[in-house]
Amino acid sequence: MRVLGIDPGLATMGWGVVESDGFKDKLVQYGALITYPRDTFPTRLYSLFTGVQGLLTTFKPDEIAFEELFFSKNITTGIQVAGARGVALAACQGYTQALFEYTPMQIKQAVVGYGGADKHQVQSMVRVLLGLREVPRPDDAADAVACALTHAHAGAGRMQFKIK
Amino acid sequence: MRVLGIDPGLATMGWGVVESDGFKDKLVQYGALITYPRDTFPTRLYSLFTGVQGLLTTFKPDEIAFEELFFSKNITTGIQVAGARGVALAACQGYTQALFEYTPMQIKQAVVGYGGADKHQVQSMVRVLLGLREVPRPDDAADAVACALTHAHAGAGRMQFKIK
Repeated sequence: MRVLGIDPGLATMGWGVVESDGFKDKLVQYGALITYPRDTFPTRLYSLFTGVQGLLTTFKPDEIAFEELFFSKNITTGIQVAGARGVALAACQGYTQALFEYTPMQIKQAVVGYGGADKHQVQSMVRVLLGLREVPRPDDAADAVACALTHAHAGAGRMQFKIK
Repeated sequence: MRVLGIDPGLATMGWGVVESDGFKDKLVQYGALITYPRDTFPTRLYSLFTGVQGLLTTFKPDEIAFEELFFSKNITTGIQVAGARGVALAACQGYTQALFEYTPMQIKQAVVGYGGADKHQVQSMVRVLLGLREVPRPDDAADAVACALTHAHAGAGRMQFKIK
């Protein structure tokens, strides 16, 4: 199964594609969709929408796993990130209904085995599990890869969290 | 000039199309895109995205005016409405860069002449300005029409509020 992981954000939307049989994992590709503050908000959203569509047509994932948003108390930022997540969800829904979502704690639990693990432990385990020389950069891409791995190992049913 | 007004929402996204030379106005059409709680959030977002695209290809507006969101303190609702607004903005940006936004107070000021006007006064003026027998229904559609009228009468420059 091929899983696309997405870590939603307006300025940086991390993504990672993992091929997995549930035991062995292979990293296909990773990266980040970047948008710039000099552009208008609608321009940035549209760029993310077409960017996600591009990932879907390029990598043809079977299922898609989102990292659940962390919302700051800054309402403007919250609205912007929620908008970015919205366009990513809409783009993915136009491609497949197999959309899942995991909290940072679920991802840490799945990748490190401990929900209180820190960022570096997660990134280090991503590197080890996928046999990489280096941790994927930027951080958002590493997070997206960790999210894809989480879904790949979640098996069917109870451990999977379909977006409702 | 033909203006599409949009009042963003997840369950009900009001819209209205107005043809105007800045003095005389004609209502072309109005309605609401509806999504259902029985469907998943991504399904509802995708439905709004394609719905807005449908309005654009059907009515071919020159410019688009959004009513600014009112955000409740309920964070789940806020995230959902921000997502719905995001997909509407992305769909519109793929069609034109002429996207504008007005606060409820600006719309009341423009349509009734008084920023503290109530909902009924706004709807009543929408009916009068457009020579309609009845107020457009649902309320979200009437709000979207009022927003389109506001933009149509804003003239160039200072009174227009381009989405940044």
